[in-house]
Amino acid sequence: MDVTRILARYLVNSSWADIPERVRHEAARALLNFMGCAIGASRHETVDNTLAAIKPFAGPPQASVLGRPERLDILNAALVNGISAHVFDFDDTHARAIHPSAPVLPALLAFAEWRKITGAELIHAFVLGVEAEERVGLSVFPEHYEAGWHITGTAGVFGSAAGAGKLLGLDEQKMAWALGIAATQSSGLQEMFGSMCKSLHPGRAAQGGLTAALLAANGFTSSERAIEAPRGFARVLSTKFDPKVITEGLGSRYELMSNMYKPYACGLVVHAAIDGCIELSRENSLAPEAIEAIELTVSPLVTRLTGNPDPQTGLEGKFSVYHAVCAAIVHGAAGEAQFSDACVRDPRVAALRKRVSLREDAAIGRTEARVNIRARDGRTFARHVEHALGTLARPMSDADLEAKFTALAQELLPAAQIAEIIGLCWKVAGLEDAGAVARAAATRA
Amino acid sequence: MDVTRILARYLVNSSWADIPERVRHEAARALLNFMGCAIGASRHETVDNTLAAIKPFAGPPQASVLGRPERLDILNAALVNGISAHVFDFDDTHARAIHPSAPVLPALLAFAEWRKITGAELIHAFVLGVEAEERVGLSVFPEHYEAGWHITGTAGVFGSAAGAGKLLGLDEQKMAWALGIAATQSSGLQEMFGSMCKSLHPGRAAQGGLTAALLAANGFTSSERAIEAPRGFARVLSTKFDPKVITEGLGSRYELMSNMYKPYACGLVVHAAIDGCIELSRENSLAPEAIEAIELTVSPLVTRLTGNPDPQTGLEGKFSVYHAVCAAIVHGAAGEAQFSDACVRDPRVAALRKRVSLREDAAIGRTEARVNIRARDGRTFARHVEHALGTLARPMSDADLEAKFTALAQELLPAAQIAEIIGLCWKVAGLEDAGAVARAAATRA
Repeated sequence: MDVTRILARYLVNSSWADIPERVRHEAARALLNFMGCAIGASRHETVDNTLAAIKPFAGPPQASVLGRPERLDILNAALVNGISAHVFDFDDTHARAIHPSAPVLPALLAFAEWRKITGAELIHAFVLGVEAEERVGLSVFPEHYEAGWHITGTAGVFGSAAGAGKLLGLDEQKMAWALGIAATQSSGLQEMFGSMCKSLHPGRAAQGGLTAALLAANGFTSSERAIEAPRGFARVLSTKFDPKVITEGLGSRYELMSNMYKPYACGLVVHAAIDGCIELSRENSLAPEAIEAIELTVSPLVTRLTGNPDPQTGLEGKFSVYHAVCAAIVHGAAGEAQFSDACVRDPRVAALRKRVSLREDAAIGRTEARVNIRARDGRTFARHVEHALGTLARPMSDADLEAKFTALAQELLPAAQIAEIIGLCWKVAGLEDAGAVARAAATRA
Repeated sequence: MDVTRILARYLVNSSWADIPERVRHEAARALLNFMGCAIGASRHETVDNTLAAIKPFAGPPQASVLGRPERLDILNAALVNGISAHVFDFDDTHARAIHPSAPVLPALLAFAEWRKITGAELIHAFVLGVEAEERVGLSVFPEHYEAGWHITGTAGVFGSAAGAGKLLGLDEQKMAWALGIAATQSSGLQEMFGSMCKSLHPGRAAQGGLTAALLAANGFTSSERAIEAPRGFARVLSTKFDPKVITEGLGSRYELMSNMYKPYACGLVVHAAIDGCIELSRENSLAPEAIEAIELTVSPLVTRLTGNPDPQTGLEGKFSVYHAVCAAIVHGAAGEAQFSDACVRDPRVAALRKRVSLREDAAIGRTEARVNIRARDGRTFARHVEHALGTLARPMSDADLEAKFTALAQELLPAAQIAEIIGLCWKVAGLEDAGAVARAAATRA
């Protein structure tokens, strides 16, 4: 089956009128969530260091760095905004696989500042980009992920190529080339989790996919069977490949409708445990010092991804379910502040971490957890969190997303600017000039 | 074993005085060969299309595009020169694995135009870059290659990171980060062979490795176990990993001494047959029309990789031993011109191709061949080529490399400029300003 060609044909032929209203609205929700994450992390040292490294080589000031005064060429802007969007690990997550927005939106927002496009064109390209990256990613999931690939990088590059290719008006052959040029740049190792390199993955995916589309538009050839060929993406990077996942239901089912937004600034697999701990400690007014033991029954994935019992830095704390639940009990929240170095080193939190134990249960889902707390006075409390807040079964509301954006941006932008960005995101599909979104998120030097 | 750390430590501690004279000279030979390949392909549509795509986004004019008038920022110059060096498939080849120069030299030459470094610093960084990429590549070879990875891209990125990291004076930790940032960008699929994307691989490797070193220099963190960790490069991209290949003999054995240069613009497995045909036809003044039959006894690999008896294009001609030997007999050479569409369609060459027959012999090596020619007048000629010209057993001489450079550059550069570049390459280790090499290969607008 010519999977690459079929996907390319769909991307080329899709029209804005095809995109249902509920999908358009979900795209606006994803955009708002993305903007908050990118702005919120815009002063993080990961972003500072990236800018220090690349600014001497950047091209014309074509596109904004979100939350900052710098303007860069669109390829470098895509890189930096892709990094900042993922630094807090607070960006969106598809129900089964990848973080969809961070590899795609930076490429399209930068494009929108370079060549004038409408908000509808931006959202249409974004919806298609998510469709491409999720379908390609899911066609090799979970074996591809279990092999150690960071799927947000490896599949994300298809999304930015598809979205940028749509904005460039590529024909079917050139769209297939763009997907192929993306495929041959596909990269990103899970070994990087816990270092700044994790955020590099969506940044490079955004930049690489945009480059792929620009190269294809200029006649740079690729295999036209890059996804399915014996030495193509799926066979080389995975032991599993189900081509029907890519081709079935194109245009009738939208992967963006399986998108989730995180209330907590860490990996999704930890959220149910956080929910349970916050609920039990709040409902029972349990001070940390009153707790003798916390027992978490979780998916084996939780141990594998976040099994560090003794993190030393805020970043390591994001990959420690031990830290996440204790910080949440101490502070009643699990925002970015709870994953700072200071919070990880806080003696109250550190002391409580030693009283957490994990039990793996393969029957437990990755957004599910059972929490048992034993107080020093002998009382015991139990909570079964079937679905974490922010999952499809229990989504964040539009108002929740506005509050999350505001919390992320309020230290960095004045209230009027925050309100403007929120307004632009909700009405994005009607904008004549989509470049207004990114420009509204820039700051003065 | 902390392979990444051990490699990083070696790279950081290596001093110029450690590098033996024969290794320095081999580096100069590799540089000259690289320059010819990059200049020779500088007007190829692959390069034209790349430049058309990226020029609107390029930064300050810091570095030369070899063979052309454009100047780009160093990251984009590394990309373009990495592409052009590989377009003809005429660049150097390590005896066992990857094309070493194309992913590394573009990064270092661009660097040399940006920050003044000496020729000795350039050559030292190049020697170390080759050491890093070959050792990392060989540690997973051949399983990694057989899985479908284009190892020149996947391992090459370690070479440019190591070399650029050396020029930036990274300490051991930052060098380990640079190798890690390289590892997580490692990519390139064999499915791209036959399209422009094959050349994108060394280009992206050069650019990605240079970016990795710059990021690390600016404090961008990575795993410090990127090569050997369970979810690191070797385990995720290969079923085989032999860490000792990376760590043993560092500083005493130099992979650059296993470097080979091609006299003919096609795959190495065809070279011995070409040698035999050129020698017999030249020594016996055999005109093509005087030949009744050519019988080649070759390794089964030759049939598998180049068994097309009736190629239609120049690119197909590179994968046809039938065409290669006939073009060589007709023209007395097998350079890029002999693999043009015109030469493949030339009736004299096409007629001679029909008189070639292949015999496989599993006992024959991949750079060995037996050639038997029967003339129409009844005479017979036989030659056993034990080692093709350009192999380690029978290397191209310095004069051969000069002639190859001249043949590649002569249509594009005036004779005085060709002589200047050749001179700079031979005396590179003594240059006060290594930037002179790349600048000498630029043209006027």
